[in-house]
Amino acid sequence: MTTPLAAKIAREYGTPAAVIDMDRVERNIARIQAACDAAGVANRPHIKTHKSPLLATMQIKAGAKGITCQKLGEAEVMADAGIDDILISYNLIGEEKMARLGALQGKAHMTVACDNSVVVAGLPQAAAASGRPLSVVVECDTGRKRAGVETPAEAIALAREIAGSKGLKFAGFMLYPTETGWAEAQKFFDEALAGIRAHGLDVTMVSTGGSPNMVNVGKLKGGTEHRPGTYIYNDRMQVAAGVAGWDDCALNIYSTVVSRAGPDRGILDAGSKTLTSDTGGLEGHGLILEHPEAKIARFAEEHGFLDLTRSNTRPNVGDVVRIVPNHVCVVVNMMDEVVMVRGDEILGTLPVAARGKLR
Amino acid sequence: MTTPLAAKIAREYGTPAAVIDMDRVERNIARIQAACDAAGVANRPHIKTHKSPLLATMQIKAGAKGITCQKLGEAEVMADAGIDDILISYNLIGEEKMARLGALQGKAHMTVACDNSVVVAGLPQAAAASGRPLSVVVECDTGRKRAGVETPAEAIALAREIAGSKGLKFAGFMLYPTETGWAEAQKFFDEALAGIRAHGLDVTMVSTGGSPNMVNVGKLKGGTEHRPGTYIYNDRMQVAAGVAGWDDCALNIYSTVVSRAGPDRGILDAGSKTLTSDTGGLEGHGLILEHPEAKIARFAEEHGFLDLTRSNTRPNVGDVVRIVPNHVCVVVNMMDEVVMVRGDEILGTLPVAARGKLR
Repeated sequence: MTTPLAAKIAREYGTPAAVIDMDRVERNIARIQAACDAAGVANRPHIKTHKSPLLATMQIKAGAKGITCQKLGEAEVMADAGIDDILISYNLIGEEKMARLGALQGKAHMTVACDNSVVVAGLPQAAAASGRPLSVVVECDTGRKRAGVETPAEAIALAREIAGSKGLKFAGFMLYPTETGWAEAQKFFDEALAGIRAHGLDVTMVSTGGSPNMVNVGKLKGGTEHRPGTYIYNDRMQVAAGVAGWDDCALNIYSTVVSRAGPDRGILDAGSKTLTSDTGGLEGHGLILEHPEAKIARFAEEHGFLDLTRSNTRPNVGDVVRIVPNHVCVVVNMMDEVVMVRGDEILGTLPVAARGKLR
Repeated sequence: MTTPLAAKIAREYGTPAAVIDMDRVERNIARIQAACDAAGVANRPHIKTHKSPLLATMQIKAGAKGITCQKLGEAEVMADAGIDDILISYNLIGEEKMARLGALQGKAHMTVACDNSVVVAGLPQAAAASGRPLSVVVECDTGRKRAGVETPAEAIALAREIAGSKGLKFAGFMLYPTETGWAEAQKFFDEALAGIRAHGLDVTMVSTGGSPNMVNVGKLKGGTEHRPGTYIYNDRMQVAAGVAGWDDCALNIYSTVVSRAGPDRGILDAGSKTLTSDTGGLEGHGLILEHPEAKIARFAEEHGFLDLTRSNTRPNVGDVVRIVPNHVCVVVNMMDEVVMVRGDEILGTLPVAARGKLR
């Protein structure tokens, strides 16, 4: 079964194609902005999910205070589009990056994160190049064992190091609590805050993160803002986490069934080059809306292996199906563009302008 | 520890960066061409690994008969660069693709693969648009359960269907035997060949595939060509398969250690957006040449999680390390460009011109 819209997408653009429904995008933007407003924290969406200046601008027009980027290259695209308040939530290291950060700081109000002294030692070069103070937050690890200092004592020491560095302004703390780790995060933050205050410092930014964490938004006493990302599109992981329903999933991959060599199997033209090998911890690689019992069992680069043993209805060769990906952020990064629709109407394409910015 | 070249790459381009050593690239091209020559089969390299017209042209100058692409968009880039003999090893379906295939056929000699009647029914549209006959091979499944007809009888029937279709020329068979399945592939092929000959047809192209299969090249009696891909760069999977050594790995990811929040762990600035979540069935996500005991245990999009529990030497924040990826083809697809070096000299950048061609 191929829906009329899917047939039209295949005819006009070919498959595989990423299609976003703007009604759902707008509803998702409004819903999470309202949740942040209700919780009394600012919204600083992470643009890694959409990588589009147009969508970032829509988020800001809806009330977001600024945006979060992970890479300088993403921030450059966003600043060029006129976005003025950008947090790079990542340790930036090296002369090449400092020169670019300095140039960026001339165009937009930049804040960067750090978790170690090597990063702090490099940042004054960027501040000097721009001639304005650079805001810096200390990243705190509160359970994910990713980046972030591990103890309040280290956070306090690093805050003092920032405050004592030429051209740098200590702005506050960045946390990314686990879904169940907010009490732990509160304890860490309270201790770090008391420590820096004892040294005459204070915070203007205390930033928490994550779309799955929207259920906890506002829970950190003293938190000033939240950095949700995935909510603009949602995906199978968000549905599994209970923070979105299938009707909130704004991005589908439209894919053609290109082979049905056996009765219990088939091949989609969307493989790991489209949907990626990132399972997000789920079984199967996406939900096929037309055939929810079918399993996308594994991938080659251009082949999605369909296991149809549990399916009552089985697709024919040539059918165009719609897939909700497991992890939408990584899928968007595979695309130069997405197709925008509103209901059954095709609006045109949207470049994924900050795609593939590795640096 | 950071090598002088790594320091220079970081300073000039930043990290993460993909760096290819042209001495190794040229050696790999020559070695596999010589192996095909010795086996008496033509070489039709799969360009999915490098996605670069420059490197494809080098392969052809070294003796390759033509190239293999998986997607129309890849073939378009290659034909525009003057490459004239292109196999698209994939079932192409739909009007949009047929229009593009017809246009391509006006620029280069195209062959396409198919494994079902829906594909065969569509192809005459492309042939008609170009005004020249289109060569078509039947894809045969000989053990991978991917695409490909499952039986010689189906292969024979499909060959006859092609031969009876306006504008199409039946050219032969395409096989992708498993590493241990060459006897099975021979049996399948012999039966299919006898069958089509009984109907007055014959083959001009019998194509086998795979870089790990280079140990078997020439083993299929009646085979006319082989489609190796990964050999131009090689990777950790090729080394694990015993068909390449570490010195044959021509592409490294240069990545900076950006965090060392705990004694037994660290963070690389290369995450799944650079190295992908494709493990290739191996443990860990790549070999760090400077710290072979370190394990790249898992990924976030921009974070590579280093497990250093087994490491005697541990990297410092700011160190730039070189990583041999598990599966190089999927890594190259994440890059807009790679940096070319020869030994310690930087030659410049090479665009990955056919990157991200989903369609």
